[in-house]
Amino acid sequence: MSNIKGPRGTQDILPGEVEKWQYVESVLADICHRYHYKEVRTPVFEHTELFQRGVGDSTDIVQKEMYTFEDRGGRSITLRPEGTASVVRSFVQHKVYGYPNQPTKLFYFGPMFRYERPQQGRMRQFVQFGIEALGSDDPAIDAEVIALAMNAYQELGLTSLKLVLNSLGDLESRKNHREALIAHFKPHKDELCEDCQMRLETNPMRVLDCKKDREHPAMETAPSILDYLNKESREYFETVKSVLDKMGIPYVIDPNLVRGLDYYNHTAFEIMSEAEGFGAITTLSGGGRYNGLVEEVGGPETAGIGFALSIERLLMALDAEGIELPIDEQLDCYVVTVGDEAKKEAASIVYQLRQAGIQVDKDYADKKMKAQFKAADRLRAKYVLVLGEDELQNNQINLKNMDTGDQQTIKLEEIVEHMKKEFKED
Amino acid sequence: MSNIKGPRGTQDILPGEVEKWQYVESVLADICHRYHYKEVRTPVFEHTELFQRGVGDSTDIVQKEMYTFEDRGGRSITLRPEGTASVVRSFVQHKVYGYPNQPTKLFYFGPMFRYERPQQGRMRQFVQFGIEALGSDDPAIDAEVIALAMNAYQELGLTSLKLVLNSLGDLESRKNHREALIAHFKPHKDELCEDCQMRLETNPMRVLDCKKDREHPAMETAPSILDYLNKESREYFETVKSVLDKMGIPYVIDPNLVRGLDYYNHTAFEIMSEAEGFGAITTLSGGGRYNGLVEEVGGPETAGIGFALSIERLLMALDAEGIELPIDEQLDCYVVTVGDEAKKEAASIVYQLRQAGIQVDKDYADKKMKAQFKAADRLRAKYVLVLGEDELQNNQINLKNMDTGDQQTIKLEEIVEHMKKEFKED
Repeated sequence: MSNIKGPRGTQDILPGEVEKWQYVESVLADICHRYHYKEVRTPVFEHTELFQRGVGDSTDIVQKEMYTFEDRGGRSITLRPEGTASVVRSFVQHKVYGYPNQPTKLFYFGPMFRYERPQQGRMRQFVQFGIEALGSDDPAIDAEVIALAMNAYQELGLTSLKLVLNSLGDLESRKNHREALIAHFKPHKDELCEDCQMRLETNPMRVLDCKKDREHPAMETAPSILDYLNKESREYFETVKSVLDKMGIPYVIDPNLVRGLDYYNHTAFEIMSEAEGFGAITTLSGGGRYNGLVEEVGGPETAGIGFALSIERLLMALDAEGIELPIDEQLDCYVVTVGDEAKKEAASIVYQLRQAGIQVDKDYADKKMKAQFKAADRLRAKYVLVLGEDELQNNQINLKNMDTGDQQTIKLEEIVEHMKKEFKED
Repeated sequence: MSNIKGPRGTQDILPGEVEKWQYVESVLADICHRYHYKEVRTPVFEHTELFQRGVGDSTDIVQKEMYTFEDRGGRSITLRPEGTASVVRSFVQHKVYGYPNQPTKLFYFGPMFRYERPQQGRMRQFVQFGIEALGSDDPAIDAEVIALAMNAYQELGLTSLKLVLNSLGDLESRKNHREALIAHFKPHKDELCEDCQMRLETNPMRVLDCKKDREHPAMETAPSILDYLNKESREYFETVKSVLDKMGIPYVIDPNLVRGLDYYNHTAFEIMSEAEGFGAITTLSGGGRYNGLVEEVGGPETAGIGFALSIERLLMALDAEGIELPIDEQLDCYVVTVGDEAKKEAASIVYQLRQAGIQVDKDYADKKMKAQFKAADRLRAKYVLVLGEDELQNNQINLKNMDTGDQQTIKLEEIVEHMKKEFKED
């Protein structure tokens, strides 16, 4: 039979690698606990309309990158390309805005799907961790979201980080800036790339974000959003910055930071890796405020802000900085047997030890005693229990502490209690 | 804007409910650790061919229930309906059979997808936990897999469990039984349901499993697989049973237990809930041996056995038995502020406390002091810190232990160290 491979742009995460994912995720979950964000889980697919409305019809994601298909009932379904739209949909559907504790602070982990050309740090199925704070327009919560993001990277050991900050202002500010952008780029329209010619109509701010037209001279003189912020938006941004200052979190302002999604306003930010050898895509994560999105999805007027990071890129950044995660894969206990009767007896002892909370393994490949000891070594077992015919006849088992080399003989019926004590002392 | 709902047959898991999932999953992961099974993560979708070959063309799953679609590159892709085929595919693709420690013992968590009529305990997206042991045909590992499954339920507190066991024998035994089944049912073919008429051609054993034809008189007199086991298969089954006996795990034999998938042989088992009020579907989980599947997917001859459970049904069983999981949602610390300056200062204190490992929250909704205290109560905060204008002026903060009612005033610059000590003593 021929070999079947996993789909292009997806990956398997196997033992040896998966421990890094588990570790990173446990740190992220712990940080969420401390910041008092609670987990939400939404389905892997949604009605396509959700992303058209909640990500934005003019975005590359919706136009080019979605896994959209019809289910057996003829409904148009899409594998989620990002997490925010689904979280907001669940917030509206279950009327979470009516829960007693507001704002609602949520986090999520999960696979996301975008049909792109696969490259390092850009998979078709990738895993995002993200948070959303719904129901508050206090600038302090913008700072909290940013702080949580920075904290996450720092606690994992990353140091070459750059926090880039911008404000996209409120509706009025964006509208004025939009007009100025159109007036500014119109004379150069034919010189811009095809996508940007379109963007100039649908979402001119995204022209500032274009990789192809980056070098066009009109870019440098483009009107900055920061000059178009009205008083409220300016004050909002100032407060966010002053809270970050108070926290001691450094940032740089980049008025060209616009983010890929349609729905952002006010605070927008990205965290980049400045580590050497990190690769072409230096953005680790990004986020921003999206007041208005909850209404777009059918809910009441609700402020919102969030951020998301890709676990793949986080692991790449850890690699680029040469950070070793504190992962220790040592086996507690390995049981070596000689003879068929001992083998059967061992199955029961192993079972009892595991029930008592101890990690144990044994041979299941009919290995000779020597090969069993080799396996125990390879698994870096802390203790080896030996059950041979002699031991079995005397109702005993031999215990060897692999660190100290100490050996002792224990009565079979006492071995579970004995091992419990050994591990309590550890 | 109109409301967008999540797709039919899917669910959102929100705070208040998600803690149960987290708890159950952490117990399962811990049991896997003790049994020395390691996590593997595979993509949510696979090439459709994998499931046609690895689940079986004649199964209901492949014929009726898969979410199959074409991706933008024109390839046929399917959302995984179960976990084993993907795990085996990754085992083959990455040549895990060549790793030094064999058998390969793996576990997984993840969403699975079947387009069925949604009902209680049967969702279109559901979450499975499963394990696979690849590379051993030692009957003791069959017992280990069953023991892990039983252990999982028991540690969560379930008592009304029934383990049902069968052997489907090896290829030869199955072939002889298959012929006997065809001969037995052929005279009644027209009386059987449409599906069974088909099954009689493709996979007659599955007739025994039919819900519609359960009452047909020919069922009771159908030839039992146990009478068709050859010597090897019989001995294999006897050893599995004797190891279970040695472990003290009770079971009942049911020769009609055949499992829904094509690839099973030798040991097959299901665990049922006998709790009152559990619902119509009493199967909690099932598994079995699948020697031959690895070759089917393109790998070398490799024995295999596994089992999978649905987390949804596990939670239903816990509910049916009235088991309260030990989930305690108390907030460590809540910071109450009065005045704008205190609010800004508090953002920084909260940030520092969180960096020090303490769970803290504060108000982000401009609540009055009284309402902030109410929020702290609702969140069952262990400590409340109060920062008002007076405190701020004196560079102090007020700390209240909500258990004892004790209050004390602490210097602002000492509060982080002080709180670290408070929690170390806890």
